[in-house]
Order: sequence, then C-alpha cells, then structure tokens
Amino acid sequence: MNFSSKLLEDAVAEFAKLPGVGQKTALRLVLHLLNRDRDEVQKFSTAISKLRNEIQFCQTCHNISDQKVCEICSSPKRDHSLICVVEDTRDVMAIENTNQYNGVYHVLGGLISPMDGIGPADLQVDTLVERLKDNAVKEIIFALSATMEGDTTIFYLHKRLKQFNINISTIARGIAFGGELEYVDEITLGRSIVTRVPYENSLS
Amino acid sequence: MNFSSKLLEDAVAEFAKLPGVGQKTALRLVLHLLNRDRDEVQKFSTAISKLRNEIQFCQTCHNISDQKVCEICSSPKRDHSLICVVEDTRDVMAIENTNQYNGVYHVLGGLISPMDGIGPADLQVDTLVERLKDNAVKEIIFALSATMEGDTTIFYLHKRLKQFNINISTIARGIAFGGELEYVDEITLGRSIVTRVPYENSLS
Ligand SMILES: [Zn+2]
Ligand SMILES: [Zn+2]
Repeated sequence: MNFSSKLLEDAVAEFAKLPGVGQKTALRLVLHLLNRDRDEVQKFSTAISKLRNEIQFCQTCHNISDQKVCEICSSPKRDHSLICVVEDTRDVMAIENTNQYNGVYHVLGGLISPMDGIGPADLQVDTLVERLKDNAVKEIIFALSATMEGDTTIFYLHKRLKQFNINISTIARGIAFGGELEYVDEITLGRSIVTRVPYENSLS
Repeated sequence: MNFSSKLLEDAVAEFAKLPGVGQKTALRLVLHLLNRDRDEVQKFSTAISKLRNEIQFCQTCHNISDQKVCEICSSPKRDHSLICVVEDTRDVMAIENTNQYNGVYHVLGGLISPMDGIGPADLQVDTLVERLKDNAVKEIIFALSATMEGDTTIFYLHKRLKQFNINISTIARGIAFGGELEYVDEITLGRSIVTRVPYENSLS
C-alpha cells in the first residue's frame, strides 16, 4: 500500500501486527480512530499502555489480577482442595460463567507445543507442583482444549503429578477433537466439568 | 463477561469499541498484547496517540497528509485541471494503485447519508466549489461507491457544480450495485476510470 502519511502508515503497521488483522482491516480501524474524538482515542491508547505496564498475575494461581492474590484464591467460600488447571484467563472466565465450579484454578499460561517451541519450562508447571506439596489438595481437574497441544500437556502433567496422592481428572469430552475450550457453550462446558472422568479412564 | 482485573476489562472495552470487533475478539487481542514485549506494546500505544494528535489534512484536497499541502497537490507532474472526487483516503490509495490516473483529488471525508445524519455540511463540499471558482479545472470525476449514499452524494454535488462550465463524469460502473469502491480489484477500477462517462449519460 502507498500511504499519503507516515503517521498513518505507522499506525496501520502496528494494527496489522495483531493476530487476524490484515492491512485492509488495519487501515479501516485506523481511519475509524481518526474520526473519533481526541479524548476517546487517548483513552484507548492509555488503556493499552496501562494494561501492559501495570497488570499483575496472582501469586498463587497466576491468573491476571489487580491484586497480589486474586479474588478467587483469597475467597474462603471456594474449595481450595480442588484445583482446575487451565491454559489462560479466558478459560477461567468461561468456567466461572457456568456457575458449576467452586474450586480454585491454576493458569498455565499456555500449552506445551514443540512446534511453537513452548516447553514445560515456559509454563507455570513448577508452581503447580509446589502447590501440591502440603497435601491440602485432593483433586486436580485438567480443563484444557481438546487439541494435540492440550493432550500433550495433560500427558506431561500427569507424569509429573502422579507422585502425589491426588485424584486426577479431565473434563468430559463434550468437545469435538480440535475444539478450543473458550468457544464451547456454557451448558456443554458446565456439564463436562460435572461429569469429569479420572485421567486414566480417559485414555482409551 | 466477568473479568478478573479492571485493567484487563478496560482494555477489552476499548478494543470492543472498534468496528467489527466483538468482546471475544477484543479479549483475544488484549491477551495477545500481554504476551508481547513491553516496548512493542508501548510502540503500538504511541502510534495510536500520535496518529490522532499529529495527523494533518491537505489544505487543498483534504487527504491525510504529513504536510500542509500533500505530495499530489504540490506535484507539477499532475494534471491540476482534472479533479477526482472520492470518499476517503482509502479510495485515493486504491486509484493511485491503478497507475491509470494523473489528475488530482478531492477527499469529501464521507458520503451524504440521511440515515446516519450525515449531510453536505459535514463533508468537504464548500471547499470543492471553492476550488472551481478560478476556472482552472476542466473536469470533475466522481469516483464514489456504487451505493445509495454514493448516488445521493453524486446527485447533490452535480446540482451544486453544474453552474460551472466543467465536464462532470462518473467512473464507469464495473461495480455491482452495493459494491464498495475500496474492495474493487485494480484492473476493474483502472478500466472504469479510463472509460468514465459524462454524468448525464449515466442516468438511464
Ligand atoms: Zn489466584
Ligand atoms: Zn492534497
């Protein structure tokens, strides 16, 4: 594309770095911003900058949080003997939305993916093992996407966790292979948590 | 959605204000930014803020520009007796891409749309009339989208401009009704400029 302005070109280039945003879409978004009030656009710019500079992660479960320990981890109403292991904060939001789960979470921050060069050391795996050492946890539920990466991650974690005397289950597969957790509807997701199966039984 | 962080919620809300971006897409984009380097995200934030605060519009044709008069308007190689009237900067880019046009432009900044409350006073119409007063312009080409709004705008402008002794043409309709100019391929667009027709002939 041949831009009439460097400022315009720079802004379009930045938007086009976002996943799923091509050059034409980026230009459309930038022209939209140019038509908005200056204050509005400043709010947008500030929200992005604050997000990246000020965001914190819960010391216990590693979910995105504005406090050192998140609301779920610090709530006495939650069952702290039950940990649901998820990929990222979207999965916590999706499961909270079902109103079917009263335990706590552990956010891995990704899935093992040799193709993308993501190994266990890039994820919150050691901190999960650490959480199990005081024997207060009775059950771990794996709520990971029904993809190759999800299965690989469960396989690896199961090996690491079976040293502990803990029930390990996976959410029931109401999800077609290849299905991403965050796009599953609430009812299916809620039901698959209630009907979770021991991990060994799921290997068939 | 139930966010675990106000910073996260604010950033998602800002992204969701963009056209065509829903809550889920906004969350995906925000989580992507959280995984990027701090410097990278700062560059993104700064590009948006600079864009809105520092961008200029050419005093002559009103296209986005980094100078007071844009490169096209200040070029002695362009034919300044020929003005192509377009909706926005994307259309200038699309037409420049065809390498079929050597005149100058006039960017209206939108189309007349009673439904959206956009009238002639919201567009660069008076400044177009002003450009014709010294009789240096011989032809006006309307290169507007083949939509209801495009046709309404051409109809209105034709009434305003027929007082001048100027040829008024519209680009040939190689475009299906409802087609947006910026999505037309270069060959069709280039050909439709070369085979433009006098406006009166296009009313049939
Ligand atoms: Zn937490
Ligand atoms: Zn200009």
